[in-house]
Amino acid sequence: MNTSTPPSPIRIALLGCGTVGSQVARILLADAEDLGNRAGAPLELVGVAVRTLDAQRDVELPDGLLTLDAESLVANADIVIELMGGMEPAKSLILRAIDHGAAVVSGNKALLAQDGPELYEQADAAGVQLSYEAAVAGAIPILRPIRDSLSGDRITRVLGIVNGTTNYILDQMDSTGARFADALKTAQDLGYAEADPTADIEGHDAAAKAAILASLSFHTRFALENVFFEGITSVTAQDIASAAEDGYVVKLLAIAELLGDASGADGVGVRVHPTLLPRSHPLAAVRGAFNAVFVEAENAGELMFYGQGAGGTPTASAVLGDVVSAARRMVLGGPGRTETTTGHVPALGIDAVRTSYCIALQVVDEPGVLAQISRLFAANGVSIETMRQRIRPSGPDGSTTAELRIVTHRALEASLAATVRQVAELEVITAVSSVLRVEGI
Amino acid sequence: MNTSTPPSPIRIALLGCGTVGSQVARILLADAEDLGNRAGAPLELVGVAVRTLDAQRDVELPDGLLTLDAESLVANADIVIELMGGMEPAKSLILRAIDHGAAVVSGNKALLAQDGPELYEQADAAGVQLSYEAAVAGAIPILRPIRDSLSGDRITRVLGIVNGTTNYILDQMDSTGARFADALKTAQDLGYAEADPTADIEGHDAAAKAAILASLSFHTRFALENVFFEGITSVTAQDIASAAEDGYVVKLLAIAELLGDASGADGVGVRVHPTLLPRSHPLAAVRGAFNAVFVEAENAGELMFYGQGAGGTPTASAVLGDVVSAARRMVLGGPGRTETTTGHVPALGIDAVRTSYCIALQVVDEPGVLAQISRLFAANGVSIETMRQRIRPSGPDGSTTAELRIVTHRALEASLAATVRQVAELEVITAVSSVLRVEGI
Repeated sequence: MNTSTPPSPIRIALLGCGTVGSQVARILLADAEDLGNRAGAPLELVGVAVRTLDAQRDVELPDGLLTLDAESLVANADIVIELMGGMEPAKSLILRAIDHGAAVVSGNKALLAQDGPELYEQADAAGVQLSYEAAVAGAIPILRPIRDSLSGDRITRVLGIVNGTTNYILDQMDSTGARFADALKTAQDLGYAEADPTADIEGHDAAAKAAILASLSFHTRFALENVFFEGITSVTAQDIASAAEDGYVVKLLAIAELLGDASGADGVGVRVHPTLLPRSHPLAAVRGAFNAVFVEAENAGELMFYGQGAGGTPTASAVLGDVVSAARRMVLGGPGRTETTTGHVPALGIDAVRTSYCIALQVVDEPGVLAQISRLFAANGVSIETMRQRIRPSGPDGSTTAELRIVTHRALEASLAATVRQVAELEVITAVSSVLRVEGI
Repeated sequence: MNTSTPPSPIRIALLGCGTVGSQVARILLADAEDLGNRAGAPLELVGVAVRTLDAQRDVELPDGLLTLDAESLVANADIVIELMGGMEPAKSLILRAIDHGAAVVSGNKALLAQDGPELYEQADAAGVQLSYEAAVAGAIPILRPIRDSLSGDRITRVLGIVNGTTNYILDQMDSTGARFADALKTAQDLGYAEADPTADIEGHDAAAKAAILASLSFHTRFALENVFFEGITSVTAQDIASAAEDGYVVKLLAIAELLGDASGADGVGVRVHPTLLPRSHPLAAVRGAFNAVFVEAENAGELMFYGQGAGGTPTASAVLGDVVSAARRMVLGGPGRTETTTGHVPALGIDAVRTSYCIALQVVDEPGVLAQISRLFAANGVSIETMRQRIRPSGPDGSTTAELRIVTHRALEASLAATVRQVAELEVITAVSSVLRVEGI
């Protein structure tokens, strides 16, 4: 290696100084020497763009580093780290950075899920690198393994626990029997859930990550509009208790999978919803606010990646991995782009998905009920894997009701949904207490 | 992207056509179009070097692809895949490929562990890429995440289940109560262990992988001679049953960790040995022949990578990930090297390691024994975490012996070893039945 001329410093601009941004700044300053050694050139944090100069921050930064002028900062950087969140001005600033030929590192999953395809194309056209490891599953290296390590394989399915807040809530409900509202309150008290938890509990956050995971896994650009999603707000303590009795655990999963007929793959389905998983599945053991992504590939078989999905310092680790990798490529003269082609696998709607349902029904306890129900399943081409009935005393008149729990084999979502609709209309059905999809069986 | 001139094919030479090689050849031929699309240029398998032309193989190859002349094959390739195993001629052929400017992909852990430092240097000097994802933990993408994704973090510790044969044997012993010899026989019958299982059960294979993991994790080049290792041949059914009683599981772990005093890190210890792990540890759930690598990093916290550690097809997936990544870099004009610097953290011997011991002692059941033993521990600066005594009738004369199980706090390996030596010499000790290191507590 020629070491006669010291390499010139790589100028880094940081946009945003919140939970993650402040940790990125701290580590860039504190570990400058180590990071520079690994990159092959000094990494110099030239500025941190913020919205107000006098806000309370998690780290103390040297004088003069903070600026309100993000535009000028971007124009003078080799690497731009975007951690502002939200759509604007984040998007414009990223496009400006690409225009200037700077490498971009972003952790902005909402923006990437919505406008990712446009941003990736702009970066490609300009020959600059756009990396975003921090946008999915925080500290867990998942995007690079999918993009590079599995580039010689064919991924068939990705199942991810990619939202720590909801995993914490569901894990609390599972381990303590708490109701959703109480578990959410605990999560908020402990800082695992925000004051306005909508994006997490309604599944928006997981849906954005699902779009990003699907895009990388299937070499096709999926956006948020391609993702079917349901949150966890309607999951009851009873759902979780019944699941536990049957050997299942409820997890909010982001699922992206190849779908098709016997002749080959027709498309990719991307969805997020509460899911029953057998307790023996590796994802079932992911507790608390941890994240994990389970990948099924044609040759590699089953792989799982596990770690912290959120938090300032863990997420900063992922951001800085992207920064050092981008810097290395600059030093060694590598390409901006790391992927040469993208495919065009169509995105399929939820109706095309093949999954299993676990349906809990309250039924009148009288002869012939099971036969009526079974007939409807059969008519829709849905085959029943297990059916359990439990009789309970009900009215003061000594009448009884029965709870039926039916787990189906895999069938088309459209057929399953139709079956449930028709079952609900039967006179012998008092209530459809719960319908949950099942994976991993 | 300029698509006016189709890119010229990338010429791939495959050395070796055994379990993994034959699957690599099969997939390269069957999925040529997909792989070429991802690489950005056609990937052409130009030849497969073998030792004899008429051997039985797992796949049928087109006429004319097999050759005995590995040297000429290497001289005409852009990417050389070395899956011959062993030291020679593998090493000479890799050096020849580097000389010719070809990228090298190898799965040869034994060679990389022994001569890796020399090979990495030669590749660096020639500016060519040497990648070896398949050499550690088969299909699991672990080397690239450590090298790239965690390049902005500081890894403090890596714990790996990196040998599927021994994990299968230990898991069998744990779940069925089998003795080592019987579990080994089962593993051999099922193809999880070779007819000559020495390299696996004596820990050589895991030690080679530990050296490679340590080199990447700590940016320093470690060789096999830096690794302390013990196999699993002396693990008894009793060890495993006692461990289970206490809530532990026995795993053969490859461990690489930063060691040092309070003022900072002094060096890296690399070791392989049967280890007690609490059942709640994520690695404890890794069953059968699966592999997993658990990484502790300063910012990212705890990460785990899980998947199949062996087998022709899974390992071929890792090989082909390296091939496609190398090809992409050629197409896009990237650097051969992916790391610019290596550090110089010294390798420390086993004596410098701080760990815990679980020691099982047969002692005479008489007053004062515990005091004698405790005194020796204290004199060596080893603090006891738990001590359990169980009394059993022994001789026909009605005498009794006691079994003592002591788990220590973390202490210097040298002090622990000295303590055990001194305890063994006490007159009240009938036997030291087992000494196992403990991690994850």
